[in-house]
Amino acid sequence: MTSTTDQGRVLTTALAHEAAQIFDLLGYLKQRQIQVESALEKAIAVTYPEKIYEAMRYSLMAGGKRLRPILCLATCELAGGTVDMAMPAACSLEMIHTMSLIHDDLPAMDNDDYRRGKLTNHKVYGEDIAILAGDGLLAYAFEFIALQTRQVNPAQILQVVVRLAKAVGAAGLVGGQVVDLESEGNPDVTLETLSFIHRHKTGALLEASVVCGAILANAPDPDLQRLSRYAQNIGLAFQIIDDVLDITATQEELGKTAGKDLQAQKATYPSFWGIDESRRQANQLVLEAKAEIAAFGEKAVPLMAIADYITARKH
Amino acid sequence: MTSTTDQGRVLTTALAHEAAQIFDLLGYLKQRQIQVESALEKAIAVTYPEKIYEAMRYSLMAGGKRLRPILCLATCELAGGTVDMAMPAACSLEMIHTMSLIHDDLPAMDNDDYRRGKLTNHKVYGEDIAILAGDGLLAYAFEFIALQTRQVNPAQILQVVVRLAKAVGAAGLVGGQVVDLESEGNPDVTLETLSFIHRHKTGALLEASVVCGAILANAPDPDLQRLSRYAQNIGLAFQIIDDVLDITATQEELGKTAGKDLQAQKATYPSFWGIDESRRQANQLVLEAKAEIAAFGEKAVPLMAIADYITARKH
Repeated sequence: MTSTTDQGRVLTTALAHEAAQIFDLLGYLKQRQIQVESALEKAIAVTYPEKIYEAMRYSLMAGGKRLRPILCLATCELAGGTVDMAMPAACSLEMIHTMSLIHDDLPAMDNDDYRRGKLTNHKVYGEDIAILAGDGLLAYAFEFIALQTRQVNPAQILQVVVRLAKAVGAAGLVGGQVVDLESEGNPDVTLETLSFIHRHKTGALLEASVVCGAILANAPDPDLQRLSRYAQNIGLAFQIIDDVLDITATQEELGKTAGKDLQAQKATYPSFWGIDESRRQANQLVLEAKAEIAAFGEKAVPLMAIADYITARKH
Repeated sequence: MTSTTDQGRVLTTALAHEAAQIFDLLGYLKQRQIQVESALEKAIAVTYPEKIYEAMRYSLMAGGKRLRPILCLATCELAGGTVDMAMPAACSLEMIHTMSLIHDDLPAMDNDDYRRGKLTNHKVYGEDIAILAGDGLLAYAFEFIALQTRQVNPAQILQVVVRLAKAVGAAGLVGGQVVDLESEGNPDVTLETLSFIHRHKTGALLEASVVCGAILANAPDPDLQRLSRYAQNIGLAFQIIDDVLDITATQEELGKTAGKDLQAQKATYPSFWGIDESRRQANQLVLEAKAEIAAFGEKAVPLMAIADYITARKH
């Protein structure tokens, strides 16, 4: 026998799943992307010494899906907040993400010449400026969120500062990149190590994106935990699909050098599971992610659709 | 005719100047240095992936005068706060300073092999890890201050986050380094450009050190402005003396390659003014710095002594 509450939840869940299917995700993403681009455009003014601001803006405005800011705005709204409350944090997330790409692309790291179909930062501005542009973006991310966030208690803004810093530091993105660099060319990398890399290199900032939006809206702890698990699942799915696309997509579709992982003898999910099983695992993770947030009902529709989009995307 | 208040101020000022002369600065600096080292020692635990935490600790614990943390603690006490309130910010300042040194020393930047008498970070850990160790320290500085500061209102901690971020970003240290790199080997660098470089590359973080201590103690705005001018003056004096020492001190005294500026054809204050006039200018700035804070009376004694110390130091 199911209780009324359970029946209610089952119904809500079913409705939410259905709503997610008819939800115009691409329209939603497009509209949000425009809002985020417009806020980013205004975030950094060019002044003396122009070169550093131009270098920061070059990579920040180089396109991209703006997935992290969009997730942050979406969870803030889900938790009862507004787009305005979360926009500074959303921009900060993109600044941090951009900084990590600029530094990852450096010759001393992944040595990439192209990113999002354009020359990488150090190819345009030189290595010295690229390092400093990354530093500048990282510092500015914290300044921006602390200075620009409105209608939120300072205590909550501080919590967001902590989450963002943890996500990018040695316990997050930086730690993941270190293990990634150590593992390159090593044929004995375990699935555990690969999973550590991705939980930190990609997962940590995606999780922060999702959780920070909800913190800004003062969401209760159990909700933060649900959203955190949702984010961890879609983060891992996102990475698995990234690995798959590196093998199956063309350079034109990716906007960056394709087949780099194979060339660099990098351990990837397809190298453990093959392409089909990798896709199956990613689908399973997306299902679990959606189950985590189904209880939020209709408010979860954008996050549901974003989860689906991750496995469906072609680049 | 002088008013009673003016007479009182003149008396206080005279007493403060005298007290500064008998104050045991070296004992004070030593004791504070030990306190700061102990807090820094505990700030970063080594965990997996060990290499990044070790690289961060290698440069953070490589000695140095700990001038920025000591200034932060001193102004917090001057403004009625406690050492405990300011210690997390003090540690964050040293993390940020260390990060700037690690990145400045990279081959793509100043290409230095030695720092504080030890091999630079990238010479020990490689360029990739050195870049990431800097990123990790910068992020952790914000996490640390936001998470560890006690007995201070969140709004004030946020103000400190903003000041720190501004001091290290493109409007501060990073911007100064950019102009410094652009000016290298250029024989036409003006005194104005040189001053821009130092106000940003060294001055901004020194100013933040001084002002943040006072913000944490909830000092009123006019006091923050006095302290800011004090810091700008000692910051510039500090840099002038640095340039002088690069010419006059031996490598052993400096703990880093001596004569580098001349070798790199860098514009320095002595290259504009000569050594004697540079020292005179530095002394004048120190006098002005001390005049700014004389009104604080006996509480200003440590800051007075630190100002004197800057022109007297040998390394």
